Amino acid sequence: MYSRTSRIEIQFGDCDPAGIVYYPNYFRFFDNATAGLLSAAFAMHKRDWLSHYGIAGIPMVDTGARFLRPSRFGDTVEIVTTITELGRSSFSVSHTLLRDGELCIEAHEKRVWVVRDGEGAIRSAPLPDDVRRLLEAQ
Amino acid sequence: MYSRTSRIEIQFGDCDPAGIVYYPNYFRFFDNATAGLLSAAFAMHKRDWLSHYGIAGIPMVDTGARFLRPSRFGDTVEIVTTITELGRSSFSVSHTLLRDGELCIEAHEKRVWVVRDGEGAIRSAPLPDDVRRLLEAQ
Amino acid sequence: MYSRTSRIEIQFGDCDPAGIVYYPNYFRFFDNATAGLLSAAFAMHKRDWLSHYGIAGIPMVDTGARFLRPSRFGDTVEIVTTITELGRSSFSVSHTLLRDGELCIEAHEKRVWVVRDGEGAIRSAPLPDDVRRLLEAQ
Amino acid sequence: MYSRTSRIEIQFGDCDPAGIVYYPNYFRFFDNATAGLLSAAFAMHKRDWLSHYGIAGIPMVDTGARFLRPSRFGDTVEIVTTITELGRSSFSVSHTLLRDGELCIEAHEKRVWVVRDGEGAIRSAPLPDDVRRLLEAQ
Repeated sequence: MYSRTSRIEIQFGDCDPAGIVYYPNYFRFFDNATAGLLSAAFAMHKRDWLSHYGIAGIPMVDTGARFLRPSRFGDTVEIVTTITELGRSSFSVSHTLLRDGELCIEAHEKRVWVVRDGEGAIRSAPLPDDVRRLLEAQ
Repeated sequence: MYSRTSRIEIQFGDCDPAGIVYYPNYFRFFDNATAGLLSAAFAMHKRDWLSHYGIAGIPMVDTGARFLRPSRFGDTVEIVTTITELGRSSFSVSHTLLRDGELCIEAHEKRVWVVRDGEGAIRSAPLPDDVRRLLEAQ
Repeated sequence: MYSRTSRIEIQFGDCDPAGIVYYPNYFRFFDNATAGLLSAAFAMHKRDWLSHYGIAGIPMVDTGARFLRPSRFGDTVEIVTTITELGRSSFSVSHTLLRDGELCIEAHEKRVWVVRDGEGAIRSAPLPDDVRRLLEAQ
Repeated sequence: MYSRTSRIEIQFGDCDPAGIVYYPNYFRFFDNATAGLLSAAFAMHKRDWLSHYGIAGIPMVDTGARFLRPSRFGDTVEIVTTITELGRSSFSVSHTLLRDGELCIEAHEKRVWVVRDGEGAIRSAPLPDDVRRLLEAQ
């Protein structure tokens, strides 16, 4: 399955009074990482693949994370993001966050491929074949 | 001019490793305070007054703040928000943030009343008379 | 076990270009809800119970959420936060987020009770008896 | 005076329901840009220069911004950050944010060089000579 590594420098404002990353911010990093992975797989920016595939988005339906080691202001961390499963109209992703090669966080998420129907409501739609093929690629 | 006081409890995640509110968050508080003032003046929620007046929003064109005293996790602060000027298609607002009656921040902002034209672009529009009247009220 | 309901009004800045709450912000809401529950159970502010119990914090070790329905700018949501398990030096919490009585999100988290040792490092410590008693209360 | 250009890709979660950057986030970008400028000038990370110079931080005392053009999800913007004035124990910085060479935001800020005194309180301290020399460099 498709995989991609991104790198983030932890900023002062990402951290809380305990001096470590305020954990909701990790989900922001992971959201960016998933958008980055799809953009790399589809070879176009998220802004473009939303309209290219005529979808309203890829809303999150389930996510979770285990926090093994905290990160601090000034740390540079690596996020390895991998497609783990392709459903009919959903897909799953894992993120492992590493610092100097040490595992800090293991996270997973499941997202749905959604389109807008005639009334503007959102409903799931099957993953297009070429999306499936691109995300299955090594 | 119309004025309104709101109260905020500073949360852990609003603060940075220095243990004080990360200053960009104050602008979030002030944005909420301006939305709250207009909602009180118009006696409807922002979600409703956007459609009621057919506007695309009230984008910020100029803002600034002087920080006199920091606030910390657990502090409850008061924000006094006041309309200070009504232009043809813009209005100005001041915010003073107080803690136990002591002045902590003085901020100001100027926003534009904008509508979407036929092509979806945004342009300024005159403040409607009743908006003007409601915001001029003491 | 101890339970507490909090209420939040979704702000404009909590939402993303899809017009719904940007999901990392829910974890911020849940973090505030857990702090609020402990503050209610301990009858003192988090700022005070950190020093009262001599702890460095209650870092998150595991969290997850299932998103069933989105919320939008202007929605008022209710978060029911409940202690679900007390370990030796950890505790688990559930959050259910409701809008007009409809279930929108189910979330859970596990946190550790940590103290700072002589060198400034962090290690888990047993939950004090009165903390255990207060969190077990209905 | 010292100047430095940084580049940011606007993320989905940086934007609001109007589809443009939620303006408080620009102050987060500018805060990172100032930290980046000092780190470049001092040739060490902020985490290190805080301890190297024995300071508690560089708290913001005054900031402001004029917003001329909005930016959107997927835009890559450039921030030119420049030291504009060196006071006895404060310094001023300007940020100009450009997209494809077009001016989008003009911002300025004033920060204080602060140390912690014996009781843990914060007070301003004179800018060290080498800081002054490094920030005066072209």
